[in-house]
Amino acid sequence: MADTILFSKTKTVIIGPERPFTIIGERINPTGRKLLAAEMAAGNYDRVVNDALAQVAAGAHMLDVNAGIPLADEPAIMAKAIKLVQSVVDVPISIDSSVVAALQSGLEAYEGKALVNSVTGEDERLEAVLPLIKKHGAAVIGISNDETGISEDPEVRFSIAKKIVERALDYGIPREDIIIDPLVMPVGAIRYAGRQVFAIVQRVRDELGVNTCCGASNVSFGLPNRKPLNAAFLAMTIGAGLTSAITNPLEPEIMQTILAADVMMGHDENCAAWISANRPQTEGGDGDGRERRRRRRDR
Amino acid sequence: MADTILFSKTKTVIIGPERPFTIIGERINPTGRKLLAAEMAAGNYDRVVNDALAQVAAGAHMLDVNAGIPLADEPAIMAKAIKLVQSVVDVPISIDSSVVAALQSGLEAYEGKALVNSVTGEDERLEAVLPLIKKHGAAVIGISNDETGISEDPEVRFSIAKKIVERALDYGIPREDIIIDPLVMPVGAIRYAGRQVFAIVQRVRDELGVNTCCGASNVSFGLPNRKPLNAAFLAMTIGAGLTSAITNPLEPEIMQTILAADVMMGHDENCAAWISANRPQTEGGDGDGRERRRRRRDR
Repeated sequence: MADTILFSKTKTVIIGPERPFTIIGERINPTGRKLLAAEMAAGNYDRVVNDALAQVAAGAHMLDVNAGIPLADEPAIMAKAIKLVQSVVDVPISIDSSVVAALQSGLEAYEGKALVNSVTGEDERLEAVLPLIKKHGAAVIGISNDETGISEDPEVRFSIAKKIVERALDYGIPREDIIIDPLVMPVGAIRYAGRQVFAIVQRVRDELGVNTCCGASNVSFGLPNRKPLNAAFLAMTIGAGLTSAITNPLEPEIMQTILAADVMMGHDENCAAWISANRPQTEGGDGDGRERRRRRRDR
Repeated sequence: MADTILFSKTKTVIIGPERPFTIIGERINPTGRKLLAAEMAAGNYDRVVNDALAQVAAGAHMLDVNAGIPLADEPAIMAKAIKLVQSVVDVPISIDSSVVAALQSGLEAYEGKALVNSVTGEDERLEAVLPLIKKHGAAVIGISNDETGISEDPEVRFSIAKKIVERALDYGIPREDIIIDPLVMPVGAIRYAGRQVFAIVQRVRDELGVNTCCGASNVSFGLPNRKPLNAAFLAMTIGAGLTSAITNPLEPEIMQTILAADVMMGHDENCAAWISANRPQTEGGDGDGRERRRRRRDR
């Protein structure tokens, strides 16, 4: 199973089965954030810049950038947001849109090797997005749904993942540049949604040999006290082989769980990142644990 | 894979792969608790009674009772402790000793079907303990070490587990009454200790078809901020198939993680236990979440 290598002008991130878990900050996304959407649509990117700085300071290894604002010029906003984010932080970016023109605009604006989030399993989408990925030498997240919707049957979701991987290979995209998102459904509605994800992640690792990524917070949709549910889900999915997630690095429970899961996987050599992040503050005195952790985990 | 059924005079607990996770309270153990050891040796069991009540109130489904006090009459103390604990709480007990006479005394004092903690893989131990288990119709925890010590090789640990299961079956103990403890080593000393446990638990489930139990806290020995490490380890091991643990139910992080892991495994039907435990306190007003959780999970 191969490593996915992504980079900005100055920084490289490697997503892989024997690497510390990769955290992709989810905050730069106007979906469900009315104020951010209104500001971005009006050309005010202050909040985007602040979200970029805060997430990287909190330990994000990459940032997801979404510019999906209804009735706005998404390709233009995407290009602007990516240029701005790259001017203030050095982490690689995940270019996130369901609009092909916005992905293209984002890829043209981005300096480095980007991750594209995402392509789904419909033939039409694959034919529109995969050539773009190939042309720009980017990596891509394939999401295991298609024109039939999101199946509750893990067999169907795995077979769509397999189709996306095969099609990407056909387009000349190397296996290591394909990442599968198994699609996380809410356990409040679908009893075995968590176990389905564990099983798909394991099969994608063992049978397709590619990395995996998911948005973790959907699992707890509709339930009270969501953070510990998301944390347990992430730890269990990392145990099943998940190699990256799009999540909120500003939530200490999530970051702590990911660091702890890295220790349990043997991915934190000598437990150095854990010890550094949990050193008593009185001992060092030159910064907080979070800042030290970020420096330690720079890759 | 079968269910392990344990009971006291009035209460039954079922450990099984499609059941909510079983929490065995670890507190009644004088090892490393000097005050408790001195009190028990002097015939003062107030702390034992309080520990029993507190752990059951916090959500323990069973209690482990250990009477290992150097130079004391362990068989007599074990019998006394078990009778007392059974007089104040109704959960089944795990009778915990490395002294065969203390296990025997505990089994004779216990009313119901007990769990015996534990037998290891040496022939001499197996020949001493297994007939006792059979005679009393109890269940037993088999720990995967033997006269060669604790192997760092998961193959060796699995093969000892297999030997214990086969020998127990030879003595007429049914498969469902055998539980394997894969032995948890500290990740601070052994880098892949966590993953070793995940792998052994999976193999024990898939190839031996028996339930599993472990003491979770050893995994974080020597590291700072141990609770989140223990919590992540437990969630990941439950994901791998662990069905019970001897742990401290008085630690809210641990209990919350176990409830969350039950949700993720689909073992908390309609997320009822989670919702009950996390209901806002103002809503009910007749008790705290912990108390409600305990009632809800009574089995």
